[in-house]
Amino acid sequence: MSCCLDLKTIDFKDPDNLFLVPVNTSNRHLHVSAGDLAKLFGPDHKLTNIKDLTQPGQYACQETVNIVGPKGMLENVRILGPERPATQVELAQTDARKIGIKAPLRNSGDLAKSPGCVLVGPKGYVVLSEGVVVAAPHIHLHVSDGEALGLADKELVDVYFSGEKKMAFFDIMVRVHPEFAKDMHLDTDEANAARLGAGDKGLIVKKS
Amino acid sequence: MSCCLDLKTIDFKDPDNLFLVPVNTSNRHLHVSAGDLAKLFGPDHKLTNIKDLTQPGQYACQETVNIVGPKGMLENVRILGPERPATQVELAQTDARKIGIKAPLRNSGDLAKSPGCVLVGPKGYVVLSEGVVVAAPHIHLHVSDGEALGLADKELVDVYFSGEKKMAFFDIMVRVHPEFAKDMHLDTDEANAARLGAGDKGLIVKKS
Repeated sequence: MSCCLDLKTIDFKDPDNLFLVPVNTSNRHLHVSAGDLAKLFGPDHKLTNIKDLTQPGQYACQETVNIVGPKGMLENVRILGPERPATQVELAQTDARKIGIKAPLRNSGDLAKSPGCVLVGPKGYVVLSEGVVVAAPHIHLHVSDGEALGLADKELVDVYFSGEKKMAFFDIMVRVHPEFAKDMHLDTDEANAARLGAGDKGLIVKKS
Repeated sequence: MSCCLDLKTIDFKDPDNLFLVPVNTSNRHLHVSAGDLAKLFGPDHKLTNIKDLTQPGQYACQETVNIVGPKGMLENVRILGPERPATQVELAQTDARKIGIKAPLRNSGDLAKSPGCVLVGPKGYVVLSEGVVVAAPHIHLHVSDGEALGLADKELVDVYFSGEKKMAFFDIMVRVHPEFAKDMHLDTDEANAARLGAGDKGLIVKKS
């Protein structure tokens, strides 16, 4: 855990505090492979960008699918583009419990031995053998942010929140990349548990 | 915030550590007044105890109702007995958002100016003018626990968790009462965000 900290002494609106990171809440979503996209929406179907996301090159798609597990179905779950090498379904724990899937806590891309599900699209089904995970909270930083904060790619930090609820998330992985924008990704369980929304910021505290 | 703490040095299974408190996750539920119970289930209807809860005298009832908000409905939400002076609906933020109700974060019983909803029972409806809240996380202690830990009723503490996810909840209210059993009440958003379940314990850290 980090150094001592008195949250009352921190100005979470301070525009000059580079250690404040904007919160970005990810609703349940999925990334699809080219092969699975064709099975779900038909051959030669291309994803339709309806909204660019904070991270450059990433976008919300018009396309949605139903996600089926042993205990239920999540309807109209949005696909995020562009296509990826492997289909990855990112659920909050509340979502996963609702459809009866024991989704492991994973960093993005780490899908080995994760459970599968059935994806239902307008043109067909995909029986996914693995790829359903709960995404671990993480922070994106541009390389310039990493240099300014003295943080390296894959370094762990603690993040404090002090709004309606005062909470801390410890050992959060920082990802530093030339194409990343500065934000912290939380899922809906984490954001709702902390009652965080658009405009809220967390304080990055480096391991001492 | 509390004193410095290295979670790695804490044994969260230590049976002799009195500062470890068992987690008790509350799913969405409601408490009903005698008048509202009669409207929902008919005159002279008595609540049916199907399971005693951790807190003495409190029990899960066979009776469930549907809770309707401007954007949707939560089906088969369980009533917890016994009857109370005022009907109180306790939702997780995820539940409240789903049905379009801006439920405030409140301590139990503090319902003033909270939003209402419509309750649907087998024998009738109740249009609730207020009473829908998100329950603030809190700790129950028997007076003997309060004495052992040196904690008074309504004192605030910090609580640390160190399972799959390492998190802290700060400024958590302790309730000390001769009829309380030692546990910490979290809602489903909080428990799912921290990936906590039956048998997990939090570490109470007193304000320094």
